[in-house]
Amino acid sequence: MTRRPLEILDQALNGQPVIVSLKGGREIRGILQGYDVHMNLVLDNAEEEINGNIQKHGILIVRGDNVIYLSPSVE
Amino acid sequence: MTRRPLEILDQALNGQPVIVSLKGGREIRGILQGYDVHMNLVLDNAEEEINGNIQKHGILIVRGDNVIYLSPSVE
Amino acid sequence: MTRRPLEILDQALNGQPVIVSLKGGREIRGILQGYDVHMNLVLDNAEEEINGNIQKHGILIVRGDNVIYLSPSVE
Amino acid sequence: MTRRPLEILDQALNGQPVIVSLKGGREIRGILQGYDVHMNLVLDNAEEEINGNIQKHGILIVRGDNVIYLSPSVE
Amino acid sequence: MTRRPLEILDQALNGQPVIVSLKGGREIRGILQGYDVHMNLVLDNAEEEINGNIQKHGILIVRGDNVIYLSPSVE
Amino acid sequence: MTRRPLEILDQALNGQPVIVSLKGGREIRGILQGYDVHMNLVLDNAEEEINGNIQKHGILIVRGDNVIYLSPSVE
Amino acid sequence: MTRRPLEILDQALNGQPVIVSLKGGREIRGILQGYDVHMNLVLDNAEEEINGNIQKHGILIVRGDNVIYLSPSVE
Repeated sequence: MTRRPLEILDQALNGQPVIVSLKGGREIRGILQGYDVHMNLVLDNAEEEINGNIQKHGILIVRGDNVIYLSPSVE
Repeated sequence: MTRRPLEILDQALNGQPVIVSLKGGREIRGILQGYDVHMNLVLDNAEEEINGNIQKHGILIVRGDNVIYLSPSVE
Repeated sequence: MTRRPLEILDQALNGQPVIVSLKGGREIRGILQGYDVHMNLVLDNAEEEINGNIQKHGILIVRGDNVIYLSPSVE
Repeated sequence: MTRRPLEILDQALNGQPVIVSLKGGREIRGILQGYDVHMNLVLDNAEEEINGNIQKHGILIVRGDNVIYLSPSVE
Repeated sequence: MTRRPLEILDQALNGQPVIVSLKGGREIRGILQGYDVHMNLVLDNAEEEINGNIQKHGILIVRGDNVIYLSPSVE
Repeated sequence: MTRRPLEILDQALNGQPVIVSLKGGREIRGILQGYDVHMNLVLDNAEEEINGNIQKHGILIVRGDNVIYLSPSVE
Repeated sequence: MTRRPLEILDQALNGQPVIVSLKGGREIRGILQGYDVHMNLVLDNAEEEINGNIQKHGILIVRGDNVIYLSPSVE
């Protein structure tokens, strides 16, 4: 059975902690709160490691064209 | 419940101070006054830090394809 | 009340002096004479600073995908 | 007989181990669980070699515009 | 009164000598003979300065996505 | 008589050995088994030379936006 | 009279020798045998100069998004 990527986003990852890998080597963690067909993402409790420091954001809206991949954050 | 990224823009961030991270490492702060489906943004009282100096703009219209992410500015 | 970016272009900036920041670090000033949905822009009395020299253009048509942002030119 | 690329994805590769070559030199292996017309991909048991270390992901959703090519993983 | 960028191309620049600034720092001069909505351009008597030498072309068809801006060539 | 590029792909190259030149300087050889309007390609018996070593793939699905050109492989 | 770029391709250049300038500094010569609205091109007797050596191709299909410009090859 084939599963569409956006279905996976909806079923397996929505409301879950995820890691988002962005172009340019940036990586953001947060709780996936929403998305759309462009892979624009809404992350809650988002944080990003920059030069060893954790920068905390509240809600973060990521423009989809920056995304390389996302996966569940296991911890 | 899934929330679409543009709904979040509308409900949580509109009229609020935001930080916008742009491709190429630029970061702009301002009051979010409007947006459209391309994530073109209107920022009021916008300012940008360039080499340690704050450059103040009045209204700023950012073309959406430059946006990496935006989040509420907490201060 | 939400204002769309292209409305702002129309109401607040049309016929006004603007600064246009382009990808690649270029910056152009001129009187905004027109635009379209791609943010293609028409600037009159346009000028660009290149290595400390001002290069003057008459009418300038900027292809929208080069635009990072534009704002009113205060002087 | 001509075979469309997305048919091949469906018939020959779905549910199979694949190697995905990404822009920027990254390479990811996993079981292809789904895809869509943008070549957005769902990989299960995904892993990536980074500087000689294997980073394991569970499910991975790759945004299609990062893909250079994919092929069956032979082992 | 708002003037659309492509109207300007039609009314003010068609059949006139123009300078076209291209991504990557290239600049081409020629007589604008035609264009379309993508800003694909037809230039006649086109010439380009490369390392101080003028390379002459007859008709030149420029793919629009390379264009940064164009303006009337004053001389 | 004008021949469309995708017709050529269909008539002259389908089922034939081809060389595909990719952005970033990579070059892949294989038997063209299929394509679509985006120039997504299916290559069989694909191989790529990397630092003087031949890496062999079975079926390879190339995302079209990576393609610079393709031509018949003469040997 | 305005001439559309693709009309020029059809009327003035089809079946003629052309020079195609590609992004990344590559330049290809050949007989223009076909094109489509994306500026995908079919070139016959195509050749490319690489480091002072001429690499000859038979038919070459160039993906349009690589094209900077094309012009008649005068010789």
